[in-house]
Amino acid sequence: MAAPDILAEAPDRPRADQRQLALLSPVVVIGAGLVGASVGCALSAAGLAVHLRDRYRSHALVAAGRGAGSVAAPTNAEVKLVVVAVPPQAVPAVVARALSRYRNAVVTDVASVKTPILDALRATGADLGRYVGSHPMAGSQYSGPLTASAGLFVDRRWVIAEGTGSPAAVHAVEELIAVCGARVIHLAPGDHDRAVAAISHLPQIMSSLTAARLREVPPGDLLLAGQGVRDVTRVAGSDPKLWAQIITANRVQILAQLRSVRNDLDRLVAGLEADDQEAVGALVAAGREGVRALPGKHGRRTGPLETVVVEIPDAPGALARLFADIQARGVNIEDLSIEHDPAEPAGYLSVAVDAGRAEGLRTAMTRSGWSLRS
Amino acid sequence: MAAPDILAEAPDRPRADQRQLALLSPVVVIGAGLVGASVGCALSAAGLAVHLRDRYRSHALVAAGRGAGSVAAPTNAEVKLVVVAVPPQAVPAVVARALSRYRNAVVTDVASVKTPILDALRATGADLGRYVGSHPMAGSQYSGPLTASAGLFVDRRWVIAEGTGSPAAVHAVEELIAVCGARVIHLAPGDHDRAVAAISHLPQIMSSLTAARLREVPPGDLLLAGQGVRDVTRVAGSDPKLWAQIITANRVQILAQLRSVRNDLDRLVAGLEADDQEAVGALVAAGREGVRALPGKHGRRTGPLETVVVEIPDAPGALARLFADIQARGVNIEDLSIEHDPAEPAGYLSVAVDAGRAEGLRTAMTRSGWSLRS
Repeated sequence: MAAPDILAEAPDRPRADQRQLALLSPVVVIGAGLVGASVGCALSAAGLAVHLRDRYRSHALVAAGRGAGSVAAPTNAEVKLVVVAVPPQAVPAVVARALSRYRNAVVTDVASVKTPILDALRATGADLGRYVGSHPMAGSQYSGPLTASAGLFVDRRWVIAEGTGSPAAVHAVEELIAVCGARVIHLAPGDHDRAVAAISHLPQIMSSLTAARLREVPPGDLLLAGQGVRDVTRVAGSDPKLWAQIITANRVQILAQLRSVRNDLDRLVAGLEADDQEAVGALVAAGREGVRALPGKHGRRTGPLETVVVEIPDAPGALARLFADIQARGVNIEDLSIEHDPAEPAGYLSVAVDAGRAEGLRTAMTRSGWSLRS
Repeated sequence: MAAPDILAEAPDRPRADQRQLALLSPVVVIGAGLVGASVGCALSAAGLAVHLRDRYRSHALVAAGRGAGSVAAPTNAEVKLVVVAVPPQAVPAVVARALSRYRNAVVTDVASVKTPILDALRATGADLGRYVGSHPMAGSQYSGPLTASAGLFVDRRWVIAEGTGSPAAVHAVEELIAVCGARVIHLAPGDHDRAVAAISHLPQIMSSLTAARLREVPPGDLLLAGQGVRDVTRVAGSDPKLWAQIITANRVQILAQLRSVRNDLDRLVAGLEADDQEAVGALVAAGREGVRALPGKHGRRTGPLETVVVEIPDAPGALARLFADIQARGVNIEDLSIEHDPAEPAGYLSVAVDAGRAEGLRTAMTRSGWSLRS
């Protein structure tokens, strides 16, 4: 496994404005793992005062060395925001303690499950007006503060659990999220847990199940590894203790997912035993449909698309010019495919672009001499 | 899903030498999909004459437009090498036809399974002295010639099936692989099929199983997608028809893998039903062990490593200088972790480096005033 790149340059991050500083600073981050230390890096880079706490002082020290803040203790009454970034099982107790120690602070946690934590907190009888549950959709296969980065949350979604915290407390966490460069999404705790079971926890488990098989592969065979197996198994490198807590905490939702996977797997095994190519193809097609449902990388909702269909000229040199002409237009190509006309030998290049740019591309292509199919 | 980047620049590729040109050129590539067209691009960039054939002329035209060669037909007797890059089920017939049409050519295929193809070819009674089975460990989630690239095979392994072809034919395919920038690995066909079942076909299936679940996720929930689910499901975007053929062709080996996965999955489900955190952790730990068994990205076998253990100074500013000092040494860090001493509060940074560089790093770190643990 490649070493984490501790030496990457910190990206330039925007500074927090005076209002944000007054609202949030000083901050205490409890738990200097990857997420906690990265929150510290983002807030410190924005100009906030960040105090780091961790069960292991060396973790807090390393986080501080990465630019995540200071290990000096603040005056409790001054603290405006506490970010609890400890493993899920420890969250309720740590949040309850933080609420009682930092009397003027909003307290949020960043754990990957929300319902069990909220239930446990409610059982403590603590006043939860200053508590807001949250969850940034960011992480990596690495754990600990060594790979912490101020840019970890940029453009990522960061869930706020609906029904937690007073409006003022929620506002403070929204500002925290803004300073980290992430985008707020409000979800009911149960909806969050259902969503992450499918979109985060199941992929993690499937990655682990795939990677677990590699232990029995002879070392020589492992030399054949290409990018596919590396991508599928990357997150399997994650911390087992942390993930055991996350998965068991969200077990009801995850079990529903795993039972569906087992049904699909049983169907596939039966199909293979019967040498039934269609059954196998149906699974791969279902997977392709699923992956295509994922939104664009930065959660950008693409506007309506329009296809411009160009006849493929029967001269390769001309086709190279066609590619160059599309490139010269500077149009963002959203999808591209080759189509065959069943009635005649001609082939077509189907170029999907933003609907607003289609007409311009058509005009330019016609002007350059290409035949369009209307 | 992001559009394939058709507009990427072709990388500079080394030219073939005179000996390679005389041995291999002209080449016929049959099947202008991603792999065939990419072979064409690599060979054309190296200066070989490449002739492209495809069931769909428009595919051959697009491949030619991408720089993969020419669509003009060569004189059959002149052809020195034929690369068959059609879906696995079509390979035996196409190879047999190519052997009889191109009387002076070495014929290789690039299909993802080797035993079933060899069995089918032997059943045809064709003289297989000029046939060499091969398989480049490269591809992508895209299909067709639009994303073909001369660099697809650079530093990838390319298997030659042992026991196929005369020594001269094998030599020609070794040169083909060298011109494509890949690295030869000789494997018995059965060993190849067993290896790819674990290292390529199983990850593909697990990716599809994961992605298939996403079809039932509400669109709003999909907004939470982070890098993990994207990596795990990337290859699920692959062509279902092609993969249905690959998976059924290698079904015996794949069924063995899937049965093991089903056992692990059943154990996990039982563990979750019993709220057994240790059982869940054991699976994640097994996955981490598996992914760590994968060799470095370019198949590089790392030499022996040695760790340099530095005491973490109780001053964050000093730690930032420690990182800078390691960086200034220009030593390649293979792994990096924080260790805690159970007996005392100090923490240690454990830096794994090439054994040959460890002593120099130790000397430099000591000279800069860091405390090392011996």
